[in-house]
Formats: sequence, C-alpha cells, structure tokens
Amino acid sequence: MTNRPKISESCVAIVGVGLIGGSIGAALKANGFTGEIIGCGRNADRLNAAKDAGLIDSVSTDAATIADRPSFWVFCTPVDKIVDGIRQAAAKSRPESIFTDAGSTKQLICEDVGTQLPNSAEFVGSHPLAGSEKNGFEFAAHDLYEDRLCVITPTESNSAAAVERVEQFWQGIGMRTLSTSPSDHDRLLATTSHLPHVAAAAMAALIDNKNHQFAATGFKDSTRVAGGDPELWTAILSRNNRHVVEAIQILKQRLTEFEHAVEANDESAIRALLASGQRGRQMLDDTPESK
Amino acid sequence: MTNRPKISESCVAIVGVGLIGGSIGAALKANGFTGEIIGCGRNADRLNAAKDAGLIDSVSTDAATIADRPSFWVFCTPVDKIVDGIRQAAAKSRPESIFTDAGSTKQLICEDVGTQLPNSAEFVGSHPLAGSEKNGFEFAAHDLYEDRLCVITPTESNSAAAVERVEQFWQGIGMRTLSTSPSDHDRLLATTSHLPHVAAAAMAALIDNKNHQFAATGFKDSTRVAGGDPELWTAILSRNNRHVVEAIQILKQRLTEFEHAVEANDESAIRALLASGQRGRQMLDDTPESK
Repeated sequence: MTNRPKISESCVAIVGVGLIGGSIGAALKANGFTGEIIGCGRNADRLNAAKDAGLIDSVSTDAATIADRPSFWVFCTPVDKIVDGIRQAAAKSRPESIFTDAGSTKQLICEDVGTQLPNSAEFVGSHPLAGSEKNGFEFAAHDLYEDRLCVITPTESNSAAAVERVEQFWQGIGMRTLSTSPSDHDRLLATTSHLPHVAAAAMAALIDNKNHQFAATGFKDSTRVAGGDPELWTAILSRNNRHVVEAIQILKQRLTEFEHAVEANDESAIRALLASGQRGRQMLDDTPESK
Repeated sequence: MTNRPKISESCVAIVGVGLIGGSIGAALKANGFTGEIIGCGRNADRLNAAKDAGLIDSVSTDAATIADRPSFWVFCTPVDKIVDGIRQAAAKSRPESIFTDAGSTKQLICEDVGTQLPNSAEFVGSHPLAGSEKNGFEFAAHDLYEDRLCVITPTESNSAAAVERVEQFWQGIGMRTLSTSPSDHDRLLATTSHLPHVAAAAMAALIDNKNHQFAATGFKDSTRVAGGDPELWTAILSRNNRHVVEAIQILKQRLTEFEHAVEANDESAIRALLASGQRGRQMLDDTPESK
C-alpha cells in the first residue's frame, strides 16, 4: 500500500455493478475512500443487494437523476452499452466531472464518445486487466485489482489533468497504470486476451459425452475463459474484429506449422515449435505485470 | 479414504523418479504401503535426494541389478524410454511380476511391449491423468493422484488377475480407474490433452517484448501447459501423430468458423460459436472425473 495515491474525488458513480463494478466499490472502500459511491444499473433488487453487501453506498436505476452528484464516473457495462450510457449521463453531469470505463475494447468507444463532453466533463478510456469468467457482484473482491495493470488510452485532445485523475483513480485502488493509444490497445489485446478466448471456446466445443471424462487440469486451465458470457464476448469480438481476425489467422498459421511437423514426424521441428512456446511462456512468468 | 484397496504388492519399483514417479512414492507412503519402494534412474545424486525427501526407500541406477526384488514395476520415464526400459528389466524380473507405466500415449507402447513378458511377468498400460507443467521430484505431492482418473489400457491377451493388480495399485493411491483400448485412449487424449498443449504452445509463442505486459490471467491460464518440457512433449506428439494431426485440423476448422463470423461481424454466428464453447466447458464443470 506504499505510495498509493489517495483518491480525491468527492463522489464516484459505478455504472454496472457486477464482478468488475462491484470489485471497484469494494476496492474503493478497502483503500479508505470516504466519498459517496453510487451504484447505477437497471435492476433495483440487484443494486440493493450489492448495497447490502457493502459494495456501494446508494443506488440508482436512472443515472440521469443522480448525475449532478458524481465527480467521477466509471462505466462497467458491456462494451456495447458504454457509449450511450456515457452520453446520457454526461448531458446532466456536474461541471468538470471525469468519465472513464472498464471496457475490453477501446478504439470504437474512444472514437464514439470523444474526449470533450457537455458541462466541461471529459472522457478518458481505461481497461483494467483483471476479471474472471464469472459474472455478478457476488464474485466481487476488494483485491481483484491489486498489483494488476490498468491500460489507459488517452487521446491527444485529453487534458493532462483529466488523465491524471483517471490514473489516480486506478492507482488509488492498487493498480499500476500504463498509457497506449486506443488502437494499440486493441491490437495488443486481440492477441493477449481476445484470441485466448476464441481458442478456448473453439477447444471447449470439442468436449462431448465420450471424451469429457478424459479432460484433466491441462484442458480445464486451457479452456477456463470459455466459461465467460457469450453475450459480453460477442460484443468484444465484434468491436475489435479486424485485429481479432488477424490474431486468429496468425494462430492458425502456427497450428499449421505444428500440423505439418507432427504429420511428418519431424521431431526437431516439433521440438523447435514447443520450445518457442515455452520461451513465450517464460517471458510471461518473468513479467511482474502479468502476474 | 473409504473403500480404498490395500496394495498387496511386496515391493514396488518406480522407474523415473520425477514429479510423476516421486508423487507415486509419496502417495504409496501416505496410503500406508509398507513394502519396499525402490527408485530407479540414471542419476544417483538425484535418486538419493529423492530418498532423503522420503519418497523412496532405496535406489538403483541399474534396474537389472535389483530386478529380482519388485513384484510391481511402474515406469514413469519419458514415453520414448518406456519400451526399452521394460524389456531390460523384464528379462531379469522375478516370476509373475507386473509391469505398468504412466505414459501419455498408449498404442505404440502397448504394441511394442506386448502383454506377456519373460518369467511369466505381464504388462498392462496405464495413464494416470494427473501432473503439472513442472518437472522434478521436488514438486512431488502425496495427493497428486487423489480422486483423479487413471486410464488403464489392457488388451485381450492380458489376464484378469494382472489387470486387477494394476487397478488395485492405482486405486490404492486414491485414483479412480477406467479401461479403454490403447487406440481409444490415444484418440481421446489427442483432443483432451495433446491438442491443448499444441494450442498453448502456438499461442504462447505469440508473446513478445511488446505485448507481454498486456497478458493477464486469461492468457496465463490458457497457456500454462506450454511451460512443459519440449523434449517430453515432442515424444508424446510424435507417438500419437495421426490422432494429433486430426485434432489440430478440427481445431483449425473451428477457428476458421470464428474467423469468418468475426470478419463478417455476424453477431449471431459469433454468439453461437461462443455458446457452443460455454456448453462444452459446462459439461466439464459438471464432470466430477475431470476435477
């Protein structure tokens, strides 16, 4: 907890109180945030249950009605709901409030929202690299973001002050931050997040009632992310489709190299391909950012 | 520990005392086996260290010299060393001893060893579905096999008594057992074990010094098995090459379906592919055998 900035916002609105949003609420409280935390969503019963669980302080099913209170907004809704949600809330927001999000794709969201919003508010895109295949605030954890990386995707028209408030927010709940352009984010995450999801889903679909007993921890680890919500991931893949298609093609090319090496029983080629994977894997194990 | 059979062998030889063999030693002791456990291997220092760690009782760097003692042999060497190792030991084994192995491929091993060995000894193939990407007896655990599945691959020429002794052995250290033919084993495991390894290696190889920071738990879980020893896995893939090639081709076909759906931004097709993966994943979560 050393050198962690104190979050100086007076009131934070979390829009979408599931695993991601609920964990932000829990992390704010765990890190001594004393301002109000308003949870916004569509389902009052769910929001009140999240409030009872101590993740948020108050609830609203219509962000526009509480829009004069938050100084800071974080949208944790599915990626296809973020742009409209921000537009509606920003129209009634209090002056100089900051909007960010936790969406897994950034280019379309940043383009569609823009940076300058009504009432001198500003938007800076974010993507905290933490989560789970599970959904719902019941799985929220105050330490979900601890020591994880948050990618922030400011554009040239963002003010330094706005970027700094967004950095302070994520760092204040324990994250490291790193800035890239929205398009670099989407290109990089296509390989490191969206592709593994596609590969896991493709592989998990091969399980049937004949072979399922023979799947052990290797298969289970390799396909864990395939348990994620198809609806959420459809939105992510379709909003990053150019980069995802490229990543799939590159993986297929690698698999073809394996196919040919194994078909020819070319042991030195198989060994080289496996060693290349082991090296990549070693690079990850040596990267504190990915732990 | 209820209903777990007591292992009635007088002396067990474990050939290859790494993670797999060392864990068998630890599990035998944890389950009250009171006979002698002889660890065999090439490196006397490593064997003595495994003995000091309490995994085995005595050591030998030449299985032939102790071959008159074990009533039961389990070969935990790499799959390309199993056949020769069994032949050499069996030539000097004591009457009616049982040989089995822990190899990840079965058809070639079972064909090459055969079932009837010198001195009325008998071979029955096994594959305990447990392990790790780690190597070395330092990672051995007495509960590695607890509640896991061991696939046993007897052939028509095996005696019922021999199969029963092999079942008793694995069940005695806490495993459930299931019999298939060697070729069915290899076909099923190509999908549930060998394919995830290939896919993980192919994907891990895409990590470079630009994107490694952006890989979070999803990528790490999906590629964990790629940390495994390339030498061991080259032997496994090349000994099951026909089935592995088929499995790679099926995965590539699934990836092509994803590629086309994402390229066309066909959200209902993407959703259906993801849902199919989620269903396979659910089937695994509902399978106690794979936990």
